[in-house]
Amino acid sequence: MTGTINGRILAGARDLDSAARFHAINPASDDRLEPAFSEAGPQHVAEAAGLAEKAFPVFRNTPPGQRADLLDAIAEKIEALGDKLIERACQETGLPTLRLQGERARTVGQLRFLAEWIRRGGADEPRIDPALPARKPQPRPDIRLRHIGIGPVAVFGASNFPLAFSVAGGDTASALAAGCPVIVKGHPAHPGTSEFVGRAIRDAVAEAGLPAGVFSLLTGTSNTLGAALVADPRIQAVGFTGSRAGGLALGRIAAERPVPIPVYAEMSSINPVFLLPAALSDRPEALATDFVASLALGAGQFCTNPGILVAQEGAALQRFLEAAAEALRATAPATMLTPGIAAAYRQGVSSFAAHPAVRQVAVGPETAESNACRATLFATDANSFCSAPELSHEVFGACALLVRCADEDEMVGVAEALEGQLTATIHLAAADHPFARVLLPILETRAGRILANGWPTGVEVCHAMVHGGPFPATSDPRTTSVGTLSIRRFLRPVCYQGLPDALLPASLQADNPFRLARCVDGVHQPAPADA
Amino acid sequence: MTGTINGRILAGARDLDSAARFHAINPASDDRLEPAFSEAGPQHVAEAAGLAEKAFPVFRNTPPGQRADLLDAIAEKIEALGDKLIERACQETGLPTLRLQGERARTVGQLRFLAEWIRRGGADEPRIDPALPARKPQPRPDIRLRHIGIGPVAVFGASNFPLAFSVAGGDTASALAAGCPVIVKGHPAHPGTSEFVGRAIRDAVAEAGLPAGVFSLLTGTSNTLGAALVADPRIQAVGFTGSRAGGLALGRIAAERPVPIPVYAEMSSINPVFLLPAALSDRPEALATDFVASLALGAGQFCTNPGILVAQEGAALQRFLEAAAEALRATAPATMLTPGIAAAYRQGVSSFAAHPAVRQVAVGPETAESNACRATLFATDANSFCSAPELSHEVFGACALLVRCADEDEMVGVAEALEGQLTATIHLAAADHPFARVLLPILETRAGRILANGWPTGVEVCHAMVHGGPFPATSDPRTTSVGTLSIRRFLRPVCYQGLPDALLPASLQADNPFRLARCVDGVHQPAPADA
Repeated sequence: MTGTINGRILAGARDLDSAARFHAINPASDDRLEPAFSEAGPQHVAEAAGLAEKAFPVFRNTPPGQRADLLDAIAEKIEALGDKLIERACQETGLPTLRLQGERARTVGQLRFLAEWIRRGGADEPRIDPALPARKPQPRPDIRLRHIGIGPVAVFGASNFPLAFSVAGGDTASALAAGCPVIVKGHPAHPGTSEFVGRAIRDAVAEAGLPAGVFSLLTGTSNTLGAALVADPRIQAVGFTGSRAGGLALGRIAAERPVPIPVYAEMSSINPVFLLPAALSDRPEALATDFVASLALGAGQFCTNPGILVAQEGAALQRFLEAAAEALRATAPATMLTPGIAAAYRQGVSSFAAHPAVRQVAVGPETAESNACRATLFATDANSFCSAPELSHEVFGACALLVRCADEDEMVGVAEALEGQLTATIHLAAADHPFARVLLPILETRAGRILANGWPTGVEVCHAMVHGGPFPATSDPRTTSVGTLSIRRFLRPVCYQGLPDALLPASLQADNPFRLARCVDGVHQPAPADA
Repeated sequence: MTGTINGRILAGARDLDSAARFHAINPASDDRLEPAFSEAGPQHVAEAAGLAEKAFPVFRNTPPGQRADLLDAIAEKIEALGDKLIERACQETGLPTLRLQGERARTVGQLRFLAEWIRRGGADEPRIDPALPARKPQPRPDIRLRHIGIGPVAVFGASNFPLAFSVAGGDTASALAAGCPVIVKGHPAHPGTSEFVGRAIRDAVAEAGLPAGVFSLLTGTSNTLGAALVADPRIQAVGFTGSRAGGLALGRIAAERPVPIPVYAEMSSINPVFLLPAALSDRPEALATDFVASLALGAGQFCTNPGILVAQEGAALQRFLEAAAEALRATAPATMLTPGIAAAYRQGVSSFAAHPAVRQVAVGPETAESNACRATLFATDANSFCSAPELSHEVFGACALLVRCADEDEMVGVAEALEGQLTATIHLAAADHPFARVLLPILETRAGRILANGWPTGVEVCHAMVHGGPFPATSDPRTTSVGTLSIRRFLRPVCYQGLPDALLPASLQADNPFRLARCVDGVHQPAPADA
């Protein structure tokens, strides 16, 4: 039943129990939340994977419009959950109501955006090379291509986006858009939020008349659950957002299968921000307050949180630092997602504080709350940053490190020393363009998204978005987990040569019954609705 | 110097020597061919990878038209080699002149086809989502996406296509099209052919004014050469065509690197052909002679060679078998590529012959030539095929196995028992359509290309081609190694948010200076030349 939760495991249409139970914790109070949740384990993986395997042949062959309708229905049912979803998510994550309302809007907006895209051919991406019977020395047969779903997909819910990167988040939306059944491994920090959303998806699947195995939700606290899911031979791809250690462990399991499968793991990123000299000199205070706002947003618990600032010494940097310190001292501590995340944050901050090459610039106010994050800014010099790899490690939360550079060459050196990132940002004025032309080619090879005069928090769901990047930001720089391009991760191309029109998939038939955008003889033809 | 060979290793612009040498063998005579070739080893990998790393920042940023010109120039220089390339390839491979002339035409045609595609935006695949400053609750920034080369690529030349899947073959063409420097591990069976083509590429790179590290050719006989190449941290992707054992070994090396990289390995495929009842009944003799022609083409040394026939018992099958046997007995034995391949073929045929569930239908004439392939057809029944995995193993060469089925259900059972394939073929008449509708969805999940009323040998280079398929046909069913879609394997997307037009890559600038096809706000806009 939508709108109520009972702590069960959702294996297709069935509610399953297990003897082992766990509870969610309210991080704002450390209180245990009811109800108890059944711990999913390998036996539930087997059940859900069997259902997904059975559902796949039907689901992958649905017209794109039917899958789009499913995504729209899921969005509608999530909205219909109303305040109780937001209230539960607040209790389980410590995130404020406004943030969660915004995240819900983004989640349903994303489902609808992908729906609209696949309705016009964005999943099929049909290509048609008509026969050339008169070609010499040999005629060309009729050759057509469409993309189909790769198979059942395992999605790991992230702790930091209980809606947008969790049960009905980007990975689930893109996998369903591709025609792949989804088994979500729900994050144990927000099992109630997960169950609300999982039941909404289940209901949408049932009302669409699709096989129940199109969706299952397995939530549990053990690593064996995730390992069993990735190892299951019926799973054909994995979407994961979380720690570097977690992503690498799943990648190893996937690579060691008799039939290896892709793991799309989004792991760690420190999202460098380069303050170019003219921009810094023009508006040091405004940059400082905007930076602190981006740093402290959501207690800094974003993959795209700006963790590294790179700037040149001088009076402007001094003004920036004074304004940033003031803003930090005025930033109220915010509850972090879990006691474990808060403890890891304190540990990360302590490591920076104890580092001989690092000094603390400013920190947010003290607090009695045990799981709160005090935003913190540290500083180091370019040589230390480039020679101490531990200074590049992500501290998940509102912690940043300023790298003070003597000159532009040192800023270039810092750019070159960076590992793979989700984002890289430059703040620049007109006079900075020549230097930006030096930095940009370096940053392009190190990040999936380059921003100018903005802040990396806030990831737009659109056609041109890349939420991805070179290792270790992700396990696969060829892909994005946000935007319409994310659907490609779960597709494979199939070619049809010489098939009679009646036997072709409808997306490739002569009269284009689904009215899709198609590429004919190498020329893109818009969907009839866009023509 | 183009047009002469000296047995050296081509590391960028430098000719390198090594103490260890090897010779090519003429498989038609077992004669040793001059000159001796230097064995490339790990030190040459380091040299070539260093050059490739240095070349990458320049090469990846070339306008697509400049890379297209390079591909065109390579094609022209290969043609300019004239008969001596074909003569050397004949000597090294035992393949006939006409076949190699055709393969050369395909090789240069492919280079030019990819060139034309990237000139119109096929590598960049630009996407533009213009800013929406009035959007509520938040404005949308300007967001743009293009694809860039992933980095230096290692390409393993295949034995069976000394031109089209070797030094300037599909993987090299698609990697260069993507803006990736290429290091080819030349196949040791045709080192002279490789060197001719390698020098042509080197000259084209030099005349284009590009860094010499854009291309290197390392040929050698040891597995350590290939292993060192895949393990080198500067290599970012691998293209391989060869054995299952070889592909899996490279995949393991790539997965165990500190930064794992993709390996696109095309490994083994038996390319099932289903003879549907009405088609078989309509034209058993024509199907039989066409089948034997496809089976024996090039001594069966094609990845897409039809190795499995599936048909229903009956009078039509009997007629088919009689005609096939007659055609086989009239098929002259053909020299295989290497003594090793010929020995493996004899071994594979012996295993089938000794199998208790298999009987020999017909075999080509005897021959005194030591490395010749006698085309052979075996038969088994559906139950045996489905329960004996060894009957699904590829025998590289002109060997096929007919699976005799009692009825359509058994044919479906055979389809379901298949591993991943490059191709699956159905021969059908109008009355077979209902049964084809049962088979097609099964075959779609098992093959990259589905053919009707044709033969899988012969792979068209076009936009809609898929030369790929589920494991073990390839290591990555999301890709193709033939056709314009092959370029995507070597690209990664990069997003640009809020950049001033002057700092955007030209492919994303407002006035579209490269005149590319672009996707604007989700609507494909053709290249101005196509509009």
